[in-house]
Formats: sequence, C-alpha cells, structure tokens
Amino acid sequence: MLLLIAVVQDQDVNRLLTALLEKGYRATKLASTGGFLRQGNTTLLIGVQEEQAEEVNSIIKGICRTRKGLVSPMTAVDQTLNTYIPTPVEVEVGGATVFTLKVESFEKF
Amino acid sequence: MLLLIAVVQDQDVNRLLTALLEKGYRATKLASTGGFLRQGNTTLLIGVQEEQAEEVNSIIKGICRTRKGLVSPMTAVDQTLNTYIPTPVEVEVGGATVFTLKVESFEKF
Amino acid sequence: MLLLIAVVQDQDVNRLLTALLEKGYRATKLASTGGFLRQGNTTLLIGVQEEQAEEVNSIIKGICRTRKGLVSPMTAVDQTLNTYIPTPVEVEVGGATVFTLKVESFEKF
Ligand code: NI
Ligand code: NI
Ligand code: NI
Repeated sequence: MLLLIAVVQDQDVNRLLTALLEKGYRATKLASTGGFLRQGNTTLLIGVQEEQAEEVNSIIKGICRTRKGLVSPMTAVDQTLNTYIPTPVEVEVGGATVFTLKVESFEKF
Repeated sequence: MLLLIAVVQDQDVNRLLTALLEKGYRATKLASTGGFLRQGNTTLLIGVQEEQAEEVNSIIKGICRTRKGLVSPMTAVDQTLNTYIPTPVEVEVGGATVFTLKVESFEKF
Repeated sequence: MLLLIAVVQDQDVNRLLTALLEKGYRATKLASTGGFLRQGNTTLLIGVQEEQAEEVNSIIKGICRTRKGLVSPMTAVDQTLNTYIPTPVEVEVGGATVFTLKVESFEKF
C-alpha cells in the first residue's frame, strides 16, 4: 500500500476530487497554504494500492498540471481612469506536487 | 520509530486524545475534511516506537471503530405537522483509517 | 528524496519559512494544534534531497529549538492593586519535532 500526499491548488481541488471519486478513490483534505508564494493550496492524503498509483498520478496530472490561464488584474486599476477595462493577463495556474510514501501497515476500524 | 497518520471522526477526537494521553502518547491534530462523504474528520499525527504501535492502534480501534449510533433527523421535519416528534434513526458513526509509516529519523529540538 | 514533517510553534513559523526560503527550500503549511498542552503549532511539509536533510534540520534547530523566553503574565493581574506592574516570567518557548520519511517517488506536474 502507498500513501500519496498531493499538494494542489485550491481552484483544482473540487474537479480533482470528483475525478478521483469517479474511479473509486477517496481523499482526505488537509487545510494548507503555500509557504510564501503559492497561496491557496490544499493537501490531499490518498491511500492506494501499488498498482493504482500510476492511474491516480495521471488523474492528478490531467487536472492539476501547470497551464496557462487568464486573470483580470483588478488590483491594478488606475484610479485616474474612469473607463478602466481590465485586460486579461496570461499567467501560470495550477500545478501539483505529489509525494508517494510506502505504508508499513494500514488499518480500517 | 513509526509515524501513525490516523483519520478519525471529529466526534471521537477528544475521547481519543484523552485515552492516548493517559497512556503517555501525544498527537498533533491537523484540520481535515473528508473528500466527499465523510465530513468532519480530523487527522492525527502520532509518533511511536515500533513496540507501541499495536497498543496505539488498539486504543484508536476501541474508541473510533464504526458502530451503530442514534441520530434525530431534524433536517427531515415535515412542515405540515405541528406536533412533529423526531424518531431517532440508527446510523453508522465513527470509523478510523490509520496509515503506519516508517520514520527514517526523528529529531526533537 | 525525503519528506520532512516538522511540527513547530506558531511564533517561530515566519522566521523559519524566511530562513528556509533564503536557502532555497519551500514548505507547505498545514494548520495544526497540539493535542493538549502544545497549542498553536503548525506542521510543515518539506521535500528535500538526502544530502539536504542535515542543513534543513540545522535551520529548524537554530530557529525553533526550546529556549527560555520572557512572558508578562497579564492574566494573573490582581484586581485589588491599582498599580499592578507585571513581572515578566521566564518560561520555555519554541521546540520542534521533525519526522523524516523516505519518499518512494516524487512528481511535479
Ligand atoms: Ni487552502
Ligand atoms: Ni474537521
Ligand atoms: Ni496553529
């Protein structure tokens, strides 16, 4: 048995949990924040059999991998412009870090 | 040394921590929620010696194992009845999942 | 690769994260509380290479180790004294517990 500890962005969590559940995988969510730069992440604990690890990693990758996204930079509004229309800016969103640990024993009570 | 990662129901946490402390075991509580169905759980980190793992697992089992409990289904109140008296319903409560991991090294500063 | 799970006091977290970042280490913060006596702690997940573990442990030790600190016991104010001046009391502060786990595999998406 393996324990996957996956740190993912908050914005991807619900889609990831849905995708995992569709394949029969359950996850425990831990509230977490990035140390400095990566605010708003969630840490998931997912217990899987050795032969399931590849599928779970591929589900995580499919949903959470770093990709381009558009955000409207509302915080940068220039107060002198009455007719400010934010131009969406392309940024990197998503990303996931997955640590896989060997489980010595697993109990369910 | 071993690290036990125990996911237990919120309702069982205080009794479990008391029982662990009585035997000299300390735990760190992580705020957690079930992925979908099992809301309101807590994840405990418990560092133990190899020879203590069985006792700790047995304490967790004794307090947290899945069992029958009665709940009053107040959310199902029929608005048309003035004299609604909820009938307690038997449900499964509790349950615990424990991952045991081998610790390469342990430091206390 | 190794995963360090460090439980540290809340008061030391920001200085620790700054010191880790200066050396290029990133950490994920999990909200945590001590079981009973050690309120206000934070659990950090830090992924490192084998050869970095000693340095990271030494950074944690340098910042978080148990030491003497002064606190003003404002909660013990005697209401009958108009001119109460709290005498700072020396207490133990800080402290850290670090579990080092071997990582089977590590993925970044
Ligand atoms: Ni978060
Ligand atoms: Ni909870
Ligand atoms: Ni805290």
